[in-house]
Amino acid sequence: MSDFHPIKFEDNKLILLDQLRLPREEIYTQFDTLEGVHSAIKNMVVRGAPCIGFTAIYGLAIWLENNKNFDLQAFREACDYLVTARPTAVNLKYEVDRVFEMVSNRIESGVNLAKLIKEFGDEQLLKSEKNNRAMAQFAEKELDSTLGKSKYRILTHCNTGYLACGSIGTALGVVQNLFEQGKLENTWVDETRPYLQGSRLTAFELGKMGAPHKIVVEGAASYLMKNGLVDAIFTGADRIVANGDTANKVGTSTLSVLASYYNIPFYIVAPRSSCDLDSKSGDEIEIEMRDQNEILVYKEHRIAPVDSGALNPSFDITDGKLITGIITEKGIAKGDYLHTLPKVAL
Amino acid sequence: MSDFHPIKFEDNKLILLDQLRLPREEIYTQFDTLEGVHSAIKNMVVRGAPCIGFTAIYGLAIWLENNKNFDLQAFREACDYLVTARPTAVNLKYEVDRVFEMVSNRIESGVNLAKLIKEFGDEQLLKSEKNNRAMAQFAEKELDSTLGKSKYRILTHCNTGYLACGSIGTALGVVQNLFEQGKLENTWVDETRPYLQGSRLTAFELGKMGAPHKIVVEGAASYLMKNGLVDAIFTGADRIVANGDTANKVGTSTLSVLASYYNIPFYIVAPRSSCDLDSKSGDEIEIEMRDQNEILVYKEHRIAPVDSGALNPSFDITDGKLITGIITEKGIAKGDYLHTLPKVAL
Repeated sequence: MSDFHPIKFEDNKLILLDQLRLPREEIYTQFDTLEGVHSAIKNMVVRGAPCIGFTAIYGLAIWLENNKNFDLQAFREACDYLVTARPTAVNLKYEVDRVFEMVSNRIESGVNLAKLIKEFGDEQLLKSEKNNRAMAQFAEKELDSTLGKSKYRILTHCNTGYLACGSIGTALGVVQNLFEQGKLENTWVDETRPYLQGSRLTAFELGKMGAPHKIVVEGAASYLMKNGLVDAIFTGADRIVANGDTANKVGTSTLSVLASYYNIPFYIVAPRSSCDLDSKSGDEIEIEMRDQNEILVYKEHRIAPVDSGALNPSFDITDGKLITGIITEKGIAKGDYLHTLPKVAL
Repeated sequence: MSDFHPIKFEDNKLILLDQLRLPREEIYTQFDTLEGVHSAIKNMVVRGAPCIGFTAIYGLAIWLENNKNFDLQAFREACDYLVTARPTAVNLKYEVDRVFEMVSNRIESGVNLAKLIKEFGDEQLLKSEKNNRAMAQFAEKELDSTLGKSKYRILTHCNTGYLACGSIGTALGVVQNLFEQGKLENTWVDETRPYLQGSRLTAFELGKMGAPHKIVVEGAASYLMKNGLVDAIFTGADRIVANGDTANKVGTSTLSVLASYYNIPFYIVAPRSSCDLDSKSGDEIEIEMRDQNEILVYKEHRIAPVDSGALNPSFDITDGKLITGIITEKGIAKGDYLHTLPKVAL
């Protein structure tokens, strides 16, 4: 996968692989304004909690480069504006807040703030790769110690690999690591409507690495589990709160309920930055409603009758009690998350 | 809906509304050979268990008209061939078997067998409408006596209305009747991948009748139920066996597991002809695997990478124990289906 960089920053320009055009076209688009970066996040040219975070950091570096004589109030407004691009994604706000704090602490120092923030983005990307490798190894150890099979059939939802994370990824990083270790029998790729991150992006990544996979519609999950074709489920997270309740791509919660019914282990894999222990339960998480045309139209084709509307919640909340384990770069939390999660989330 | 006939038989020709082209085009196609009828069933120009049954009867009437000097062995072969068009649909085999028996009993009688079978098809269509009305009223009574609300929010899957049944339909007939009685607050229409029967066909029918509805992706079902937006779920069935296990469009079983978790009533609505009490459990039902391109391609667009494959089970099995009630034209069965189902299925 070394020829494959979904996110790069060069010469004060952010270069993103346009995920709207995958898998048919690999087109890289340059952004050199905060407005451009905002629209790239909002329109899902870039997506996945970690990549949204890196994009936000680089976006603010661009703003700092373009606004040499700024005051902190103007920068605060730029930060607040950027956060509105995806209100549910906790990484976006997390990284924006970190950058704001760094900038407000150094604003009088005479240092090149644009350069400082750009280097901070580079560091985060590198650290993320290291963290993802760690999560993948915790997951492998967990499977070997609980299921103890020589090869695993993994079901995953949405896209959580390079395209989401800029490196091997969270849930899909688990799959990649299993594949590299010769322990992957099959990956069931949920197509993940409406945006089709599974069939477009996850299948693209698994194909690039030569890993075995089959795409299924989301309605097939119960069929697969009932027929003993799934050993474990791994998904990412957009936000994990204190009791383990987890916001992730709509449909994740469905998988967790099915997994519980069929007695199949269900894991969340996410960096500590996706954990928000200040929120007590999933009830506190705002669910982003997206444009109904994502459901009603495919390319230029209107699927549904012109007078029919749709409701398009982008995320759902998985009950913490249905999650077998939450894996971060520090380890795995299980059981009573109020007590176990802080050990791996802080 | 009086201007709307998805299935008609005139002058030894079967006229089908091409469901592959809905909702954008209302095109009627004529069939005058058994091969044509076979392909219409197989390719889902016509679909839905009841309509497949009517189509089969008319298809055999066409064969009888086209083969005046037939022997019973040749007719047996024609019948067996027709059944291969959709192996899971019990109505197809049921109606073909009934026609075969009628023909074999009357083959020496000199009666016009093509006409006899055509009239039999007409009768079945009429009877079906009466039966569907009865089921819809049983369902309304059930909701009023258990939930007792003035208006209901119903979630449904796939398409089970006029387009599936030739008349008001099974699960969608329940919705239509509630609408006519002023008791429908909203219909959540599962888009139903991969064939999109929900967004294409169910939304089309609800739009024609002016009934309130919103399309959702299947992944949103857990979101809707968790947020208290669903009062009850109604789906049709392709086959119901003795213990209540039910084969229906893939994704149905998922809804039943979610409904059980969120404590929402889940009903199957189907004519007695969909009941197969000779089979003991769902394990005996063969699941039809359909072409993977239904998932990988939309219109001329390849969604997934060219080297990625898909698994496309067309049906799944809902566990009888997760079904709140099974409604036929004779009433509602609840509880231990081994004992209650025969009362409404025979």
